[in-house]
Amino acid sequence: MRIVVLAGGIGGARFLRGLRSAAPEADVTVIGNTGDDIHLFGLKVCPDLDTVMYTLGGGIDEEQGWGRRDESFRVKSELAAYGVGPEWFGLGDRDFATHVVRTQMLGAGYPLSAVTEALCTRWNPGVRLLPMSDDRVETHVAVTLDGERRVIHFQEYWVRLRASVDAEAVVPVGADEAKPAPGVLQALAEADVILLPPSNPVVSIGTILAVPGIREAVASAAAPVVGLSPIVGGAPVRGMADKVLAAVGVESTAAAVARHYGAGLLDGWLVDTADAASAAEVEAAGIRCLAVPLMMTDTGATAAMARAALALAEEVRA
Amino acid sequence: MRIVVLAGGIGGARFLRGLRSAAPEADVTVIGNTGDDIHLFGLKVCPDLDTVMYTLGGGIDEEQGWGRRDESFRVKSELAAYGVGPEWFGLGDRDFATHVVRTQMLGAGYPLSAVTEALCTRWNPGVRLLPMSDDRVETHVAVTLDGERRVIHFQEYWVRLRASVDAEAVVPVGADEAKPAPGVLQALAEADVILLPPSNPVVSIGTILAVPGIREAVASAAAPVVGLSPIVGGAPVRGMADKVLAAVGVESTAAAVARHYGAGLLDGWLVDTADAASAAEVEAAGIRCLAVPLMMTDTGATAAMARAALALAEEVRA
Repeated sequence: MRIVVLAGGIGGARFLRGLRSAAPEADVTVIGNTGDDIHLFGLKVCPDLDTVMYTLGGGIDEEQGWGRRDESFRVKSELAAYGVGPEWFGLGDRDFATHVVRTQMLGAGYPLSAVTEALCTRWNPGVRLLPMSDDRVETHVAVTLDGERRVIHFQEYWVRLRASVDAEAVVPVGADEAKPAPGVLQALAEADVILLPPSNPVVSIGTILAVPGIREAVASAAAPVVGLSPIVGGAPVRGMADKVLAAVGVESTAAAVARHYGAGLLDGWLVDTADAASAAEVEAAGIRCLAVPLMMTDTGATAAMARAALALAEEVRA
Repeated sequence: MRIVVLAGGIGGARFLRGLRSAAPEADVTVIGNTGDDIHLFGLKVCPDLDTVMYTLGGGIDEEQGWGRRDESFRVKSELAAYGVGPEWFGLGDRDFATHVVRTQMLGAGYPLSAVTEALCTRWNPGVRLLPMSDDRVETHVAVTLDGERRVIHFQEYWVRLRASVDAEAVVPVGADEAKPAPGVLQALAEADVILLPPSNPVVSIGTILAVPGIREAVASAAAPVVGLSPIVGGAPVRGMADKVLAAVGVESTAAAVARHYGAGLLDGWLVDTADAASAAEVEAAGIRCLAVPLMMTDTGATAAMARAALALAEEVRA
């Protein structure tokens, strides 16, 4: 079975681990968000791709969900001693090496998709990890700081400001001109199932869908498309998705996110049992909806979510 | 008193520490060798400049004489896990940050001299540290490996091969077209004393002198020029200077190195007491020569060497 998953960072990576456990024989292609990418210290950092790679490759810091296990911050503290920041971005020593290798390969002319494949030969994530695009896309967020309207990098909004101010607009700069990375459209066309994990609907999956051709490929795919709600009981399970949902005028409810994706894209939608009452509203929008536990507390619970998503895909296919 | 010192790495840096102790009020300008510079992992590494900066700034690994104190090698071992080398070059985590800052500044368009000045604002080495040139000069060494003649980077010869094969030629590639860095010629012209520490006469001081204009500026300076022999008792005090001296047809003796620099450049020369017998040979070549202890066992002994060099400069000036 060929499964394609559109994934952001932590939520997507953890879901993928459950999916791998639930369907170990499946041929899984991950289309990763690169809108969070940032250049730091002259290095190209791809947080979401790395989170997927490290999580599935056994290198992730399980506690925090991103970055490397047994990490140290010697380079970063030395950079700070030179007065070179930003200090708010936690770039560890082991993680640093990944960005050095990536930056060198990009500098040598390899596209990001080839670089990602090369990095994965070390991590063996057990999935085919594709960036959504080899072109530069950078998510910017419009905010008002000290009475002044500013447009800042998504990482500055998310990591430095901890989404503490309202996002007035979220713009995936460069998405309009970006092309899907090699393999992306083919994977979607040949998929047996397409899954939207409980990743951020705006800045993760929304950014992937903003690359011209990808939304259309998902919508027109022969495969059933099933998503899992990142909102449980009116709040994001983790992260600050509510802040960026507000920026696009979407309520932070499981049903509102389903309607935001829309029946043109989604065939099925899983909400948490806490939101079972909203299933009727989703179904009224033309999307088959079931309520199952959606808390990724461990791989077992996450595998059960993946099985429920695959089962729903079979149901809507029939 | 304005003192200008032409310096390589460890030997030059340790001598400079002695000089700072012997003449704390002196205004010292260091013209550093950049022929050992190497690009590793996409970063610009300047081993000699950094050794001077770390040694005088209190950041050096005293044991080994290069690199940072309390160093770790997390980034390097991660790079190796990606199959990215070279593994033979000991690039530590703390050191890494220096090269990241340098590479970013060079990428932003600053010349190496400005970058070096910026790095020194952190280290406060107590001297003005100038690279010999802002232009790229890279020392290459011709060797025969497995019966095949190859030309390799100096660092590969020195660090990877430990100078275990003969150097058949030493070529400072790019030196012909290099210009002295801003301030170099002026410092030499305005110097009260010019010192050649016991650095490598070929790949350190020789490379500095190979930048068009620098040899002439040293030779024609009003200031006395005094050197200290890096060869004691027929062998280099440290390093493998004999190997590269052979490549330029110079015997590994204190007197031969003095003759190699020549009376056109040198006014005075210090040999170790072990080589006192060779003083007459140096004087016969028109260079005033004294024998004093030349082992830099600690800062006290090194300061005594610096005082002897300054005293000899006064003697030849008079």
